[in-house]
Amino acid sequence: MIRWNNDYNHGAHPAILAALQETNGNSYGGYGLDEWCEKARQMILSHLGGADAEVHFLLGGTQANFTVINAALRPYQGVVCADSGHIHAHETGAIEHGGHKIHVLPGQFGKLTAEAVAAEAQSFVDSGVKEHITQPKLVYISFPTEFGTIYTKQELEDLAAVCRKYRLYLFVDGARMGYGLGAEGCDVTLADLARLADAFYIGGTKCGALMGEAVVLVNDDLKDNFRSYIKQNGGMLAKGWLLGLQFATLFENGLYFSMTGHAVADAMRMRDAFRAKGIPFHMESPTNQQFVLLTEAQMEQIGRRHIFEYIAAAGEGRHCVRFCTSWSTRPEDVETLIKDIAEL
Amino acid sequence: MIRWNNDYNHGAHPAILAALQETNGNSYGGYGLDEWCEKARQMILSHLGGADAEVHFLLGGTQANFTVINAALRPYQGVVCADSGHIHAHETGAIEHGGHKIHVLPGQFGKLTAEAVAAEAQSFVDSGVKEHITQPKLVYISFPTEFGTIYTKQELEDLAAVCRKYRLYLFVDGARMGYGLGAEGCDVTLADLARLADAFYIGGTKCGALMGEAVVLVNDDLKDNFRSYIKQNGGMLAKGWLLGLQFATLFENGLYFSMTGHAVADAMRMRDAFRAKGIPFHMESPTNQQFVLLTEAQMEQIGRRHIFEYIAAAGEGRHCVRFCTSWSTRPEDVETLIKDIAEL
Amino acid sequence: MIRWNNDYNHGAHPAILAALQETNGNSYGGYGLDEWCEKARQMILSHLGGADAEVHFLLGGTQANFTVINAALRPYQGVVCADSGHIHAHETGAIEHGGHKIHVLPGQFGKLTAEAVAAEAQSFVDSGVKEHITQPKLVYISFPTEFGTIYTKQELEDLAAVCRKYRLYLFVDGARMGYGLGAEGCDVTLADLARLADAFYIGGTKCGALMGEAVVLVNDDLKDNFRSYIKQNGGMLAKGWLLGLQFATLFENGLYFSMTGHAVADAMRMRDAFRAKGIPFHMESPTNQQFVLLTEAQMEQIGRRHIFEYIAAAGEGRHCVRFCTSWSTRPEDVETLIKDIAEL
Amino acid sequence: MIRWNNDYNHGAHPAILAALQETNGNSYGGYGLDEWCEKARQMILSHLGGADAEVHFLLGGTQANFTVINAALRPYQGVVCADSGHIHAHETGAIEHGGHKIHVLPGQFGKLTAEAVAAEAQSFVDSGVKEHITQPKLVYISFPTEFGTIYTKQELEDLAAVCRKYRLYLFVDGARMGYGLGAEGCDVTLADLARLADAFYIGGTKCGALMGEAVVLVNDDLKDNFRSYIKQNGGMLAKGWLLGLQFATLFENGLYFSMTGHAVADAMRMRDAFRAKGIPFHMESPTNQQFVLLTEAQMEQIGRRHIFEYIAAAGEGRHCVRFCTSWSTRPEDVETLIKDIAEL
Repeated sequence: MIRWNNDYNHGAHPAILAALQETNGNSYGGYGLDEWCEKARQMILSHLGGADAEVHFLLGGTQANFTVINAALRPYQGVVCADSGHIHAHETGAIEHGGHKIHVLPGQFGKLTAEAVAAEAQSFVDSGVKEHITQPKLVYISFPTEFGTIYTKQELEDLAAVCRKYRLYLFVDGARMGYGLGAEGCDVTLADLARLADAFYIGGTKCGALMGEAVVLVNDDLKDNFRSYIKQNGGMLAKGWLLGLQFATLFENGLYFSMTGHAVADAMRMRDAFRAKGIPFHMESPTNQQFVLLTEAQMEQIGRRHIFEYIAAAGEGRHCVRFCTSWSTRPEDVETLIKDIAEL
Repeated sequence: MIRWNNDYNHGAHPAILAALQETNGNSYGGYGLDEWCEKARQMILSHLGGADAEVHFLLGGTQANFTVINAALRPYQGVVCADSGHIHAHETGAIEHGGHKIHVLPGQFGKLTAEAVAAEAQSFVDSGVKEHITQPKLVYISFPTEFGTIYTKQELEDLAAVCRKYRLYLFVDGARMGYGLGAEGCDVTLADLARLADAFYIGGTKCGALMGEAVVLVNDDLKDNFRSYIKQNGGMLAKGWLLGLQFATLFENGLYFSMTGHAVADAMRMRDAFRAKGIPFHMESPTNQQFVLLTEAQMEQIGRRHIFEYIAAAGEGRHCVRFCTSWSTRPEDVETLIKDIAEL
Repeated sequence: MIRWNNDYNHGAHPAILAALQETNGNSYGGYGLDEWCEKARQMILSHLGGADAEVHFLLGGTQANFTVINAALRPYQGVVCADSGHIHAHETGAIEHGGHKIHVLPGQFGKLTAEAVAAEAQSFVDSGVKEHITQPKLVYISFPTEFGTIYTKQELEDLAAVCRKYRLYLFVDGARMGYGLGAEGCDVTLADLARLADAFYIGGTKCGALMGEAVVLVNDDLKDNFRSYIKQNGGMLAKGWLLGLQFATLFENGLYFSMTGHAVADAMRMRDAFRAKGIPFHMESPTNQQFVLLTEAQMEQIGRRHIFEYIAAAGEGRHCVRFCTSWSTRPEDVETLIKDIAEL
Repeated sequence: MIRWNNDYNHGAHPAILAALQETNGNSYGGYGLDEWCEKARQMILSHLGGADAEVHFLLGGTQANFTVINAALRPYQGVVCADSGHIHAHETGAIEHGGHKIHVLPGQFGKLTAEAVAAEAQSFVDSGVKEHITQPKLVYISFPTEFGTIYTKQELEDLAAVCRKYRLYLFVDGARMGYGLGAEGCDVTLADLARLADAFYIGGTKCGALMGEAVVLVNDDLKDNFRSYIKQNGGMLAKGWLLGLQFATLFENGLYFSMTGHAVADAMRMRDAFRAKGIPFHMESPTNQQFVLLTEAQMEQIGRRHIFEYIAAAGEGRHCVRFCTSWSTRPEDVETLIKDIAEL
């Protein structure tokens, strides 16, 4: 069976295992105060267009999300998020557990529009009973989104303009950042994110690392004692250099980008195969996640050799399912999948 | 100017001030452990059809809501609530501040339907990733609702049946309980609530008291150390007998019911006056709150002598505004209002 | 039986009931946005030596404590408090429920010394692992303390100097403020508190009101959206003018000070009676609370006519008990008590 | 320079890196639902004397501590802990951030005594104002303690008896479990812990793994939806098998025990060297952490070749410092250290 159900079903890129092996005899300072974290930090900063940013290494996406949001918000402030946003839909209420309301807005292909955010913010401004409601203060978006879609640079510019106007923080969940930056037609760079967002993270777990997310804090307000938040929220790895080492490896010679770029190319071939068969998509995605609507017969047939993720019934006898490629996808498996799609 | 903007703009029913005056020379035990609280408790219990309930006296609605919910839920559990629910829309995120997600469902005239609750609960049951989402565990409804509408007994039976089926708690916010029980066509009693709900409260603040809400806990699960929750959440009044005394006064000779019944009768006359003028309603309400859609000219004209509450623009040149009667409404003011409505 | 067990066993000063009666026919705006709150605010401000302070009216001491502390602190910051501090010893973990650690220091007669606070703050400054510990950021003291003792002006100056040096907030719990300001030998005024503290409150519940505490916020950092914190924490009374009205009454013609001054004078006579009998004190107190060490025989004998509060066994066959006077203490009861003490 | 400052300054035991390498080509289910977690679970269970326990794999000690405690306690309940307890002294208030008070008791050589715990629990039972204080409900101990000391089996039996009597949970932080079980004179086994504690964890991070702690839940009350707590608290690793794989490797052929046993033997040799020089100990420790009191001259001299951890000034011109051995300690480094100690 070949797994396409997600992009975190293999260990790590061989270069990372090699780096672990090479450094295993060395000893390092603890808690992220070490030379590998520093090296990875500098490598990441070199992509940020000169932004005066802090870079911290956390363990996973949920943790990165609630740690940043807990650090950013006061108790009476809330998060604006699309209805498909990971913090709203898949993190067991971790944001509310930290005390913050999520202002849920309908997403457009998994994305928040500048207009919707502006309306929510203006609604608070216009309210005559501000002390009875939570203040929208941070806009959470995912790049790419949970549906694999991406924001254009213009869309991010527009969102950032609204955020500046209403003094909202813009925070970008980049758990699949590599697949977004490498997406077909993407015109966004890390430097754009450093210019437009107040904070974002560069996902490692789903992009070649064993685990780890590189959190980039651009806005000075968010930097206040961030390491205290990391520790309090359980994200301070004793052997912190393991995260720095992985990111230094991923950013060496552009491995992060080439690896995820390959995955996107594979996904595009998969997409074309589905298209060629006339199989409808739940949404068009230019990234490594493809959501298609299969009949039960098709699910049964393709399921003989391939593991995919069931999302939900989609009506008219079809079901939304997910196929992901990743940095670990093997060319021969793509060939097999394409062939099997063609026979549906 | 006559205030119709809300139902909490006067002090207290004269009987309550008289009771305060009479007892002011006495001394009592603190923190709600006194004879007045005990007396009021027994008076309330006598309305509950023999339910084995605890009765606690808290200071206000927001406090009652978050204290009960904090006591009822574990961190991974959430509250099901209509989009107009007070805890969602008017309490500054107090539920989330306590760590709990609100599962917001579209309301029908401010009410949750049994079907919608069942669908939400079933969705959790069907989920293959339960540990990634919050478990709906408590259903919050208001009786009457924030729009002045009420549930029928059958609707409550249906909701309670769904709650039993899915092991959800049913919690009823009764900040305006008196106006609901006394509503035109209401077939629900306190005994019904004690039979169908796991917890509810009987509002005092908006129903003749200076302040205070009588929280009734029916389900044993919710009784565990509830006084500790009251204290931790700031609701334990040092002079707790002041709350017991007020509720004992309100429940003496049915004052609570007669007083709120009068207010509803006044509201029905007000409603008829609006109807007679062909002024549209935002929603039909059989209770003391009337939401009508006025033009700007009408708002200006009626505003010369009457204070009402502006809710929101309603389209087509109209605006939703609220007129409330209350236990303190004076007959002559109702006459004036009806006359002024007739001249719109 | 005469109650001396606490200072909150009677309703309110007659002037307050009279004020409630007089205004009961009026209608007011809700949630503390009314003319009585404004009037009381101005009366309080007139005592603060020109401080640019905000004044908010909350319902009780625990609520005032956690609301101010939740507003003041970030999640990684903690409160410095004496081991007898009310927030540590009598509020069911409300501060921790809000997410904040209490740094407990040994008290000296219920007081924090400037030296002890400086040592705690310096310890944080010197720490090489700041992100692994909480930052002491707010110093909580009670005036008078839980043992009835008071700080001298010099002690407060010293504490304030330490707080300024280490950028700590100084917050004064004034649940019994009147009895402190009127204490034998007190050289502290409200203007001193407004000059030295960042926030404090003037207790109403134990000083003649039905309920209510006037929170004074001096430091601008603490004023940020404080009404949102009040609402979120359940302290926003719908009929907020009831609190303003009470404080306006208490501050009219110095009633607050004369009333509590009388109570202290009564307490000093009680103290002298205990002294004359050679009964030892748990601590010397110049305020309305007297803590004495009685034998079981003495407890039995005095308990025939008087209710006092049992605190704890004190060794050597004695027990620490509390006798309180208050604004409601009657001269004839003091006479009776003194006579009964003399016969022990 | 040779690092003795802690026991987490090297990557992982070579067997773990080998296991990662071997399995890197395989794909696995996510979030800890995989065959390696299951295998490791069974291996751990085989040491637990037949206890009906759940085993979950988390990422680090702070996370394990607050996740278990958040799952175990209701908001009005607190944790009993020694003053040197890690949750109190080194985790940035994470327990309070989760809403729970820590009842700090003076430790005896870093340990809680059954007597002290019983006194704290009895004090709550005897309290006449239970709703004003937090209920001690969970006893947190470390095995070995933060000072490297260990509980005897009898001490654990006594603690467990007190916990049963007062219905307290006993929770054992086992971040350094291997070094405790392998300590000189230790008569405690994992089966004892499974019999006596309600929950404990077996540390991986400091005992040969890259990261990871195996949480063992024995008491059924603590098992309720624990995976939801893991997810909400940020501890659910997407590639959860990485933790299972590491623990399976550590428990293969007793590697965990042999590796930590070696470290203890090395520590005993180090201890003997200090003893031989007459250098005083802060506390006697039979485990891998040795706390000695050095003069500044000694610190300077030994510091030329060795990195140790500075703890605190100890008076009389001496300073408490820590030397740790670990699974990664090399024999030649021990020889060097012993020689250098001999020359102090």
